Amino acid sequence: MTAPKANRFLRTREALFEEYLSSKVPEARSPLHPLYRYALFSGGKRVRPLLVISLGELLSASQERVLPWAAAVEMVHTASLVHDDLPLLDNDDLRRGKPTLHKAFSPGLALLAGDGLVSLGAEVLQEASYSTSLKLRLTQLLLRSWGDQGIAGGQSMELLPDSDPLDLFAMKTGALFAAALEGTALILGFTPKRVKLFASLGEELGIVFQLQDDLQDSGSSSFNILSRLNRPECLRLLEEKVDRCRRMVHTLKVDAPPFNELMERILTRGKDEKAP
Amino acid sequence: MTAPKANRFLRTREALFEEYLSSKVPEARSPLHPLYRYALFSGGKRVRPLLVISLGELLSASQERVLPWAAAVEMVHTASLVHDDLPLLDNDDLRRGKPTLHKAFSPGLALLAGDGLVSLGAEVLQEASYSTSLKLRLTQLLLRSWGDQGIAGGQSMELLPDSDPLDLFAMKTGALFAAALEGTALILGFTPKRVKLFASLGEELGIVFQLQDDLQDSGSSSFNILSRLNRPECLRLLEEKVDRCRRMVHTLKVDAPPFNELMERILTRGKDEKAP
Repeated sequence: MTAPKANRFLRTREALFEEYLSSKVPEARSPLHPLYRYALFSGGKRVRPLLVISLGELLSASQERVLPWAAAVEMVHTASLVHDDLPLLDNDDLRRGKPTLHKAFSPGLALLAGDGLVSLGAEVLQEASYSTSLKLRLTQLLLRSWGDQGIAGGQSMELLPDSDPLDLFAMKTGALFAAALEGTALILGFTPKRVKLFASLGEELGIVFQLQDDLQDSGSSSFNILSRLNRPECLRLLEEKVDRCRRMVHTLKVDAPPFNELMERILTRGKDEKAP
Repeated sequence: MTAPKANRFLRTREALFEEYLSSKVPEARSPLHPLYRYALFSGGKRVRPLLVISLGELLSASQERVLPWAAAVEMVHTASLVHDDLPLLDNDDLRRGKPTLHKAFSPGLALLAGDGLVSLGAEVLQEASYSTSLKLRLTQLLLRSWGDQGIAGGQSMELLPDSDPLDLFAMKTGALFAAALEGTALILGFTPKRVKLFASLGEELGIVFQLQDDLQDSGSSSFNILSRLNRPECLRLLEEKVDRCRRMVHTLKVDAPPFNELMERILTRGKDEKAP
């Protein structure tokens, strides 16, 4: 598959994902649903779900099998952005050029919508056609990436003076990327060893992603690694991590060109305008 | 078992629960752990865990089997108090006479600790010796009671002008009581019909609990039912709901005196100084 072909694949799969995700946000069930919709459909790049879906190409059976997992991961990611934007944390008025959720509605409702999105993610898994044991593992992966070993833990480290930046990134950003790939590997029925390798790749990829964000200073996060390391040091660290990811991808020998193409797009993000 | 005997039972089980809960908050794993400890051990009445544990007396095997579920429920309850106290919602400075979590630490860390406590609840279930399918059902019950069909949904209704007060109470307070009893009934291996009856009893009990709170105006919640109904109407509604709970308890014929004693203490709360 050529790069343009892989790009076409990713675009069609993104459309499929948008439709699926929309079907999982039932209308008018609660006052929080308009907030879910606003937060989930506000121009997100869908990096995590597309990783899940492109890796899902390896499934001989229906590739739609990975959609619930992709949606659950995106819901938790969105919940983290909603909570992170709140006045208590980053106090952002805009996200992707639009008013943040608490600006468009209210801080109280936004807080609750973030809480509710995590439960909605678990509900999507519950309704999926996965086996009981797979549902449990995916739900636990999702919740772990949300908690003190994941996003909440990493964000709390931002508020403390002496946190190790790489530990912080591994939790804040790496944990959900790791969960996304680990969960997909579980759905694909890979061996425990291979599942673990995908989890490690996800964690490293998340660190790369966060280093790129900090170097572009695109976030208004309370922490930026540039406060600890100078730019050349950061660029060197990024390069090391990118090399490490490429070696891991090579070892994994994934026979899914869209996955490899997307991976390369992420690894070169910031160097290329078309990057996600 | 006489009432004093049942009371003794409840006191010893509460001590057992405190010890168990404490063992589930590992020290120094993350910056959030001191916050977990502060929030979880600040004089809570442990109503939900004691309901779980006293119903667990029906187990012929070790009654400690219900402890993980009791702890998970208390963690989600605590998370809801932490989020509800935040400046974005009720903006409370004190809870049970002590500074609220965000006053003692910071609002940002308190928000993240609330998020993390939900994941910690799921983790406790993951580590429990339940079967895979029981773990999944309990985890889903826990998450549902946290989301838009539970606490987050009910609290969001408080922020809107035309919410139905009983629907609001059923979600804000009823959902977690319902989950607590439904989950215990599942652990006890009850029939689906009986499990459902316990869930209904839990929901009604939660509504009673919230009506009592509103009548005592003990909370500083953004919503009080006395803004919709006058005091005699509320008292009449409470009486109806209490009667309904007593009838349900009668139908269920639970052969666990501490459970029945605790139930009666809750139903007469506010009429009796010793009530929980």
